[in-house]
Amino acid sequence: MSFAKLDTLGRKLEAIEHAISILSADEATNMPSGGGEKRAESVSTLAGMYHAQITAPEVGDWLSAAEGESLDGDQRLAVTGFRREYTNRTCLPADFVERQVETRMRCEQLWRELRAKNDWAGFAPALGGVVALVREEAQLRSAALGLAPYDALMEQFDPGNRAADISPVFDELKAFLKGFVPEALERQARRFEQRPLKPLQGPYAINRQRALGVDMMKAIGFDFDHGRLDVSHHPFCGGVPTDVRMTTRYVTTDFLSSLMGILHETGHALYEQNLPKQWSHWPLGKARGMGVHESQSLFVEKQVARSAEFWEWAAPAVRDHLGAEPFDNWTLEDILAHVHLVERGLIRVDADEVTYPLHVILRYELEQALVLGQLEVRDLPEAWDEKMRDYLGLSTLDNPKDGPMQDVHWPSGALGYFPSYTLGAMMAAQQWAALEKAVPDARDQMRRGQFEAINGWRRDNIWSQASRYSTPELMRRATGEPLNATYFIAHLEQRYGE
Amino acid sequence: MSFAKLDTLGRKLEAIEHAISILSADEATNMPSGGGEKRAESVSTLAGMYHAQITAPEVGDWLSAAEGESLDGDQRLAVTGFRREYTNRTCLPADFVERQVETRMRCEQLWRELRAKNDWAGFAPALGGVVALVREEAQLRSAALGLAPYDALMEQFDPGNRAADISPVFDELKAFLKGFVPEALERQARRFEQRPLKPLQGPYAINRQRALGVDMMKAIGFDFDHGRLDVSHHPFCGGVPTDVRMTTRYVTTDFLSSLMGILHETGHALYEQNLPKQWSHWPLGKARGMGVHESQSLFVEKQVARSAEFWEWAAPAVRDHLGAEPFDNWTLEDILAHVHLVERGLIRVDADEVTYPLHVILRYELEQALVLGQLEVRDLPEAWDEKMRDYLGLSTLDNPKDGPMQDVHWPSGALGYFPSYTLGAMMAAQQWAALEKAVPDARDQMRRGQFEAINGWRRDNIWSQASRYSTPELMRRATGEPLNATYFIAHLEQRYGE
Repeated sequence: MSFAKLDTLGRKLEAIEHAISILSADEATNMPSGGGEKRAESVSTLAGMYHAQITAPEVGDWLSAAEGESLDGDQRLAVTGFRREYTNRTCLPADFVERQVETRMRCEQLWRELRAKNDWAGFAPALGGVVALVREEAQLRSAALGLAPYDALMEQFDPGNRAADISPVFDELKAFLKGFVPEALERQARRFEQRPLKPLQGPYAINRQRALGVDMMKAIGFDFDHGRLDVSHHPFCGGVPTDVRMTTRYVTTDFLSSLMGILHETGHALYEQNLPKQWSHWPLGKARGMGVHESQSLFVEKQVARSAEFWEWAAPAVRDHLGAEPFDNWTLEDILAHVHLVERGLIRVDADEVTYPLHVILRYELEQALVLGQLEVRDLPEAWDEKMRDYLGLSTLDNPKDGPMQDVHWPSGALGYFPSYTLGAMMAAQQWAALEKAVPDARDQMRRGQFEAINGWRRDNIWSQASRYSTPELMRRATGEPLNATYFIAHLEQRYGE
Repeated sequence: MSFAKLDTLGRKLEAIEHAISILSADEATNMPSGGGEKRAESVSTLAGMYHAQITAPEVGDWLSAAEGESLDGDQRLAVTGFRREYTNRTCLPADFVERQVETRMRCEQLWRELRAKNDWAGFAPALGGVVALVREEAQLRSAALGLAPYDALMEQFDPGNRAADISPVFDELKAFLKGFVPEALERQARRFEQRPLKPLQGPYAINRQRALGVDMMKAIGFDFDHGRLDVSHHPFCGGVPTDVRMTTRYVTTDFLSSLMGILHETGHALYEQNLPKQWSHWPLGKARGMGVHESQSLFVEKQVARSAEFWEWAAPAVRDHLGAEPFDNWTLEDILAHVHLVERGLIRVDADEVTYPLHVILRYELEQALVLGQLEVRDLPEAWDEKMRDYLGLSTLDNPKDGPMQDVHWPSGALGYFPSYTLGAMMAAQQWAALEKAVPDARDQMRRGQFEAINGWRRDNIWSQASRYSTPELMRRATGEPLNATYFIAHLEQRYGE
């Protein structure tokens, strides 16, 4: 039976992916500096073996045969998942992929070097080369998938996402935020006049911050029999579902930076740890996509861990761990003023939840124009600046390192990825609204540090579904309606409004 | 050119081996308990891929072709190394290996369970099954290699080792030790009457023990840009030459246990870190064998770190790290009394350097008889007891868990491995003697904590030679004479004699 062959292939792929994931986590947390070159060789050889296994000519035959076999429902879905991965990987010719890997790698290296020097002129030609290949890639994927070019790129990151659905939602959100951000900042300024922001003091000892983070992770549902918390320069959630490798970075003057980071990554971790185990060796058993994954991390960070209710329960725990002294005379409002701080800034990764979507929508609009040939790389600085002034009232014209040289996504060729961040934020708000209908006292439960019912809803509606549905279909089934901006806007108004 | 194909194959094998080594080290040091099942699947799939790559039918063709190609000296040696690995892996039929893996795994599991219960009767049939397959394996390897059956087993662990060479050396050593052990114990008892052994006190804080260990590792030459020190239940030296993963285990009442363990593993680590880098993807570039590897760890532990000269330098460092208080009124002799403690015991891994060889020779003699069909598993307890009483004056007849059920080697089918331990000890002593001819003030250098010249000799004569020569040939070239018992006996007499 051909399905059995796909099943065996899946176990091999899972084994290789396991190795790559753990080696990569180890590289960021444990590997001594001199180990890097051989580690890179090992991981890239394993990635090549993974690619060779899934794109082998006989896999195409197995797929066609399995599609005609008598299978149960899960098995049919499993075949669809294998077919999707097979198509995504075989639709680009091998020599094209080679050219692309090389061009991206050189551009990323140049980016690391020239971003620090703010040298756009030196960097632009390399980015131009990457964009030219992305356009070619979009055409190739478009032909294979029968999708519009930019949709064909997004399809890799969140199956089912279409610009025609996303653009109106982003437009609505943008229109709202352009008015809301200045109002929220004004309200915040007035509040700080009456009740100044109390600076975080510290020092908050790292071992105490760690113990606090671990306790919070446990309370939220992280399973330490199937995961760990380590330290790395860039925090991430990696590893495999049976052994999730989460990291953070501690700053002794600011416990919130690490704690909020830990809670964000815990959201990713819960998704991985709660995927259906019997499907772990099928693409079907993997997390649905980048947008859905981000919805899970943002759900824990924004809906849960930045809520006032959560802090009614968390504030005493923070004092227990970090000592009462740094918080003398602090009220819940003093902590929430930090947790809900809004700032207009140039840097996406430092942005709060109110301004963040504008950073993403700007990139979404520009990268679509780049892919469709409506914008050239040489015109990026001006196009970026124009939108940045329009959306956030800031200029980056003489500062390309904080403008179009800001992120690694474009040098590495990952166009079509950016929308996932804000789609995730909207999904998280919409999921919370649906959850509150099913668990009306969810906010009261947070006040008591109880997350079973909240996680139960997420397990039933998101985690256990893995890759059973497209991203839009998963959202429709979980929340009863298509993804829209209403709930996210309501969430911002509730938290940052009058 | 076929050599180029072997070279490319070597890079693939190195990449897979890298993954397996790091995954295994991570498993012992970092992995949460629930990660074990999927980790085992990943590692065994990678091991299967390694095996499939090196045993592919075309590899045989490449080898034959490369053996006829015009190659330089190193390349010719590289082909020999590939041929050796190919032969070692292809001389057992696939279905035989499958049967063997299953039989060993079941026997190991049973061993873990029944050893604790001291249940020889329940265990013996499973061990009988393993031994039957080992006999078959020895025949298959013997036919492929043109060696006697037991030699064909040893050949995997230390190429070139032959029972005909080893047995007379072991016999000489055994004859010496049967007299020397009781004398050394008597001398020690008399010394303790005059000057009682001062008990180690502690508590020695783990972070201080760790800092001491790390400082010693650095002084001895461990390169922390290419390795780390972690904690695991069973100490080991794993990882890869560019990223050596060493572990230890701390006991707060006994700093010597961890420190001596660290120094032992540092010996293994130096060998790995100093192998020739340009050969790292060829079998030629790997450490020669288990006996040579053990000679490198024992060299650091026994020749260096248990010498009086070393402790002249190390004792102040220990006090610096652990504090002066636990050593009030201690002289160098008080420390050396611990470092040179001789005890007659049942357990090989707990044995000191004087009694250890008798444990090994006993196993060497018994496992040869098992392989050659001169001894059956059912007769092992009596045969073990007889030798144990003869060599060490101890009986295990009513205590099989500390007799023939003591080690994992036999249940796991690794017959032919045991001699490596004592061959390593003899090699280390012989290497030190040769080194002292080249570096006459080596002992004075140790008094000052200087290891450059000592490591220089080892680099030239052992480390840089990798797998260029068979084990006996490597020793002949390094020391000017065949491996013999003279230097090890002299070493014991000097340290434990009158």
